[in-house]
Amino acid sequence: MSNAKASIITIGDELLIGQVIDTNSAWIAQHLNELGIDVLRRVAVGDEATAIKNALDEELTKSELVLITGGLGPTADDITKPLLCEYFGGKLVVNDAVLEHVRNMFVQRNRPIIERNLKQAELPDNCLVLHNRIGTAPGMWFEKDEKVIVSMPGVPFEMVAIMEDEVLPRLKQRFVGEAIEHVSIITAGEGESFIAEKIQDIEEALPGYIKLAYLPGPGMVRLRLTGRGQTADQLIKELKLQQDRIAERLEGIVVALEDIPLPEVVGRLLADKKASLGFAESCTGGYLSHLITQVPGASTYFTGAIVSYKVGVKEHVLGVDKNIIDRYGVVSEETAVEMAKNAINVLNCNNSLSITGFLGPAGGDDQIPVGTVWMAVADKERVKTKKFRFHYDRVRNKEMAAQMAMLMIWKFLNHKL
Amino acid sequence: MSNAKASIITIGDELLIGQVIDTNSAWIAQHLNELGIDVLRRVAVGDEATAIKNALDEELTKSELVLITGGLGPTADDITKPLLCEYFGGKLVVNDAVLEHVRNMFVQRNRPIIERNLKQAELPDNCLVLHNRIGTAPGMWFEKDEKVIVSMPGVPFEMVAIMEDEVLPRLKQRFVGEAIEHVSIITAGEGESFIAEKIQDIEEALPGYIKLAYLPGPGMVRLRLTGRGQTADQLIKELKLQQDRIAERLEGIVVALEDIPLPEVVGRLLADKKASLGFAESCTGGYLSHLITQVPGASTYFTGAIVSYKVGVKEHVLGVDKNIIDRYGVVSEETAVEMAKNAINVLNCNNSLSITGFLGPAGGDDQIPVGTVWMAVADKERVKTKKFRFHYDRVRNKEMAAQMAMLMIWKFLNHKL
Repeated sequence: MSNAKASIITIGDELLIGQVIDTNSAWIAQHLNELGIDVLRRVAVGDEATAIKNALDEELTKSELVLITGGLGPTADDITKPLLCEYFGGKLVVNDAVLEHVRNMFVQRNRPIIERNLKQAELPDNCLVLHNRIGTAPGMWFEKDEKVIVSMPGVPFEMVAIMEDEVLPRLKQRFVGEAIEHVSIITAGEGESFIAEKIQDIEEALPGYIKLAYLPGPGMVRLRLTGRGQTADQLIKELKLQQDRIAERLEGIVVALEDIPLPEVVGRLLADKKASLGFAESCTGGYLSHLITQVPGASTYFTGAIVSYKVGVKEHVLGVDKNIIDRYGVVSEETAVEMAKNAINVLNCNNSLSITGFLGPAGGDDQIPVGTVWMAVADKERVKTKKFRFHYDRVRNKEMAAQMAMLMIWKFLNHKL
Repeated sequence: MSNAKASIITIGDELLIGQVIDTNSAWIAQHLNELGIDVLRRVAVGDEATAIKNALDEELTKSELVLITGGLGPTADDITKPLLCEYFGGKLVVNDAVLEHVRNMFVQRNRPIIERNLKQAELPDNCLVLHNRIGTAPGMWFEKDEKVIVSMPGVPFEMVAIMEDEVLPRLKQRFVGEAIEHVSIITAGEGESFIAEKIQDIEEALPGYIKLAYLPGPGMVRLRLTGRGQTADQLIKELKLQQDRIAERLEGIVVALEDIPLPEVVGRLLADKKASLGFAESCTGGYLSHLITQVPGASTYFTGAIVSYKVGVKEHVLGVDKNIIDRYGVVSEETAVEMAKNAINVLNCNNSLSITGFLGPAGGDDQIPVGTVWMAVADKERVKTKKFRFHYDRVRNKEMAAQMAMLMIWKFLNHKL
């Protein structure tokens, strides 16, 4: 039995002028995938009736499930609801439960309700209304010619709430497919081509129902094995076998056997070692701390950070010797070492990483050009340093520097530095 | 004359299983828009020949320009190049300039070159090869039946480099269209419906060639006016007139008359006032500092932050009185006030914001449930506090708290708190 096929349609002019990055599609795709539903296509169109109708026509010829987000807000640029109502041959009627819910939301938030909001309670009489517990625009579930079409608001957290509460459970019942499973291997320090060459024989010998993909990122490559089959148990067993073979071949560059972000890899390692970590961040301006604290439970190993953006903070809070800064400069190995060593005492942690550099566009000179970054990682006995040079813009350089910093901590904790 | 129409096709299984968020489409859309080229549709398909061919067929019937990203890497899951070559009836031949460039890149990076990399120099003989100065996979420019099809690698910074160096200048020459201009108004503190009601008459009286869109975000709504016309100058004049009318009507909730992120609004205000800012961050774990330092030039007003994730850092680095923490708790108005006041001295800044809360999933109790956040904003004379309650997950709560913190600083600096 083959898997159900789905299309995702996102509606909104803001997607076509690039003002908003579409995160909804990725979320939806991930969750359909877990149910064994294949996403064939994702299509974005503007707030324009003909474009929406055409997209619906086209996707309904390709997929048996079409999920639509966007175009359901209370303002005049939202045209999806009446269009869908007409498309499926229904008419708009007031839904009392939704009306009550919209009223309650405004009362709770202590805001006046206006005509426009009450309009949100008008819904097609030919759909199943999907409750939106955190917003005023409900979702809609239509069925036509054995196909399912679901429409949800474009606000990401409202979409997520409706998917979790209403849509995913119903899809699970409706579309039972072949199992799909994924396993991942995260590697660091070698490029995509090098890895492909190294495991070529394993890749070529993979059974037909297992596919390998390379997902390169800054300083690392994620390998993803995807398998399809009748039973999840058997599939997982085979995938893990192949994962082990590849991981063994790539020994030394494997960072994790799960698709988790690098800060989580570092976090788990710290938790396992019952170790703690603090940062002295200059050029990354708090980004390292942000990444580490995105992981739930970070408070068990992360003590905190000094974001020493101005030199004064380096001197007065971190206690870096003014003579060292004057002699070697703010962006230097010596300053990085002092920052890391002092952070251990100031933040009362047993491992620290410091980072100081010029990420651009300003800063730097002939000797220390823009993109130069010094990092130091330390515990109570050891200090290791490394110099980097990044060649992109400010935001990208920050991203790269953060990845490299996480890798450096990981290597340090594993005594690979 | 009507504007040229474009479609964007992004290729990659990783997009359909939601492992990667597509940022390329938004970047491309934004830049086409600036040239006056309308993006009609964005389509994502997997690494599968038939799906790619079908997408090309379909988009070529709708658009005169099709931009493709993805599917050009050196590993086996990349099939786009031979497919495009065949689609447009060419054959693959070695391109000496690309071969030289690929070799040089490997020499520079001091890595061994392998057969697979050399393959990247094989290119269709029926396309214009677009130089990729930062990667090994070049872009390709095909023309067929008066239409233009451009293929680029999916790695975002390589795509950007090829677009900037090679594609945008050529598109500008080729497609001269009607002017498109945008102006924005950023508002804070009122919902989409309230604003729509308040400016209904202005919106209804807009000339037909100007369109208004509402883009709601946490705690704020961005309004975007888009105009189309013969001459950019005339259009900008009319858009600014409408922008002024709306801004005047919405007085008190207008934060900026430009589409810039809130941290940049705050940054400009600080720069204008020649003021400085520091943070005492607990639950946001460095995120506020990260956002403020994303803006180039932040070093003129941002001094730094203490990320006091553990209580010890609050006491020993920020100098918060242990008695206050014991008596009122870590998440309390009193602790927030102490953190903000002390941050001014510790970080040597003249404005500070502190934040302490439980963002979830752990933490909190009956009295102070998960999602509770206290903020305090201070200068040398004033302290203002506010309590928030967020209802989402950890990541979303952090995002919301950061928006609210930026708004709070903005209000405080404008004496609106």
